[in-house]
Amino acid sequence: KMASTTYQKLLQVGTKIIAVGRNYAAHAKELGNAVPKEPVLFLKPTSSYLENGGTIEIPHPLESLDHEVELAVVIGQKARDIPEASAMDYVGGYALALDMTAREIQASAKSAGLPWTVAKGQDTFTPISSVLPKTAIPDPDNLELWLKVDEEFRQKGSTKDMIFKIPFLISHISSIMTLFEGDVILTGTPKGVGPVKPGQKVTAGITNLLDIHFNVEKRQKLRS
Amino acid sequence: KMASTTYQKLLQVGTKIIAVGRNYAAHAKELGNAVPKEPVLFLKPTSSYLENGGTIEIPHPLESLDHEVELAVVIGQKARDIPEASAMDYVGGYALALDMTAREIQASAKSAGLPWTVAKGQDTFTPISSVLPKTAIPDPDNLELWLKVDEEFRQKGSTKDMIFKIPFLISHISSIMTLFEGDVILTGTPKGVGPVKPGQKVTAGITNLLDIHFNVEKRQKLRS
Ligand SMILES: [Mg+2]
Ligand SMILES: [Mg+2]
Ligand SMILES: [Mg+2]
Repeated sequence: KMASTTYQKLLQVGTKIIAVGRNYAAHAKELGNAVPKEPVLFLKPTSSYLENGGTIEIPHPLESLDHEVELAVVIGQKARDIPEASAMDYVGGYALALDMTAREIQASAKSAGLPWTVAKGQDTFTPISSVLPKTAIPDPDNLELWLKVDEEFRQKGSTKDMIFKIPFLISHISSIMTLFEGDVILTGTPKGVGPVKPGQKVTAGITNLLDIHFNVEKRQKLRS
Repeated sequence: KMASTTYQKLLQVGTKIIAVGRNYAAHAKELGNAVPKEPVLFLKPTSSYLENGGTIEIPHPLESLDHEVELAVVIGQKARDIPEASAMDYVGGYALALDMTAREIQASAKSAGLPWTVAKGQDTFTPISSVLPKTAIPDPDNLELWLKVDEEFRQKGSTKDMIFKIPFLISHISSIMTLFEGDVILTGTPKGVGPVKPGQKVTAGITNLLDIHFNVEKRQKLRS
C-alpha cells in the first residue's frame, strides 16, 4: 500500500489532463449537443490545477465561469494501447475535480471551429481534491457526485450514468497517446452545469468519501 | 552559460506544448482560414515528442499526416503575466519542431465545433530537434525555416512573416496560463503544408543552424 504522500505526489509528476466532454447523456442534452459516438477529448494543462481550499479566478472581462463536477482518474503507471480487460491495472487513484469553463469563450470557439484551450485551460480552471488510493473506491462506476454553489445544490449525478466507462476511456485514450504516471482523465460532468460568480463559494463532493470547497473571485493580474 | 545537457533537459522537464495556429498569413489562406485577430492556441501533450532521427507513426486508418514546420520557443523559467518588454528574458532556448496534423480528423473536428486533440496530439506528432541556447539565435525573427519530403522542397519561409511575434506570444499566453521551465511554444507554420506517407522521409531545418530528419511509417499497435 502506497503512503498517502505518494498519492499526493501523483498530481505533481503528471504532465497532462485529458478531459472527456459530453460523457453523460443528460448533460450533453442540456447544452444542446448530440450524444457522442466516441469520446470527445480535450487537453487541459497541469498549470490549471488548484488545490482544495483555493480561489477560482475569473479572468477579465468575464463575469462568471461554469462549474462542471467530474470524477478524476489518476494514472498510476505508463499506459499505451491498453485493452479494456486490463485497463484498471493502470489506475493509481481517484480525485474529484471541477472542469471550470468559460462558456462564452467555448461557445465562440465552437462556432468558429477553434480549440477550447482558452475556455478550459486557464490557471485555477481545474480545482481538484487530494488523491484517494484505488482501494478506497472499489466501485468507481457507482459514485454520487454533487456540487453546490453557496447553499444551492446545482449538480447531483451518479458515475453509473457515464456513457463511456473508465476501462473504455483508458483503453481508448491510450490508443491515441501514451499516458504516464500522474496523468489525469477527467471523466465528464453530469447535468446541472451553470455559472459561479465572484463572492460565491463552490462546494463539491463524492457522497460518503470526500468534499472540497473553493472561493470564487475576479482575477487580479500580477504586476511584473 | 548553461551546459549542453542542460538544454536537452529542458524538454524533459516541460509539461506542456502550446501551439499557435494560423500565425503566417500565407498559410492561413492556403487552408481557407481568415487571418486571426488574436492567436489561435491549442495544446499538444509532451507525450507527442519524437527525437531527431525517429519514426513518425501514421495511425490506422489514415494514409498520411500533414507536415507543419515551426520554430519552437523553449521557456527557461516560470512566466505569468509577463509584459512584452521583458518577455525575451523568459526564453531558455529554441528548437525546430514539426506540428504533425491528421488533417481529415482536424477538418471534421472543426466542422463539428470539437477540439483538435486527436488530430494534433498523438504519439510522434511533435518531432523536435535538440534545444539551441538562446545565445545561438540572436535574431529569432529572421530565421529561414524549410522542409523537404524526400527530395522535394515543400515549405520555405521566414519567421519575419509571423503575424504574432515571440514577445507578444509569451506575453499573451502567460496572461492565460502560467508557463513553466521547459514548456514549449510552437509558433506556427509558413505556407506549403501537405501530406507525408509511409516510406517517405521528412527533412527540415533552420538555414545555417540545424537540420532534422524523420522516417514515416504506418503505426503498428503494441500488443499488451
Ligand atoms: Mg500537458
Ligand atoms: Mg467537463
Ligand atoms: Mg501548426
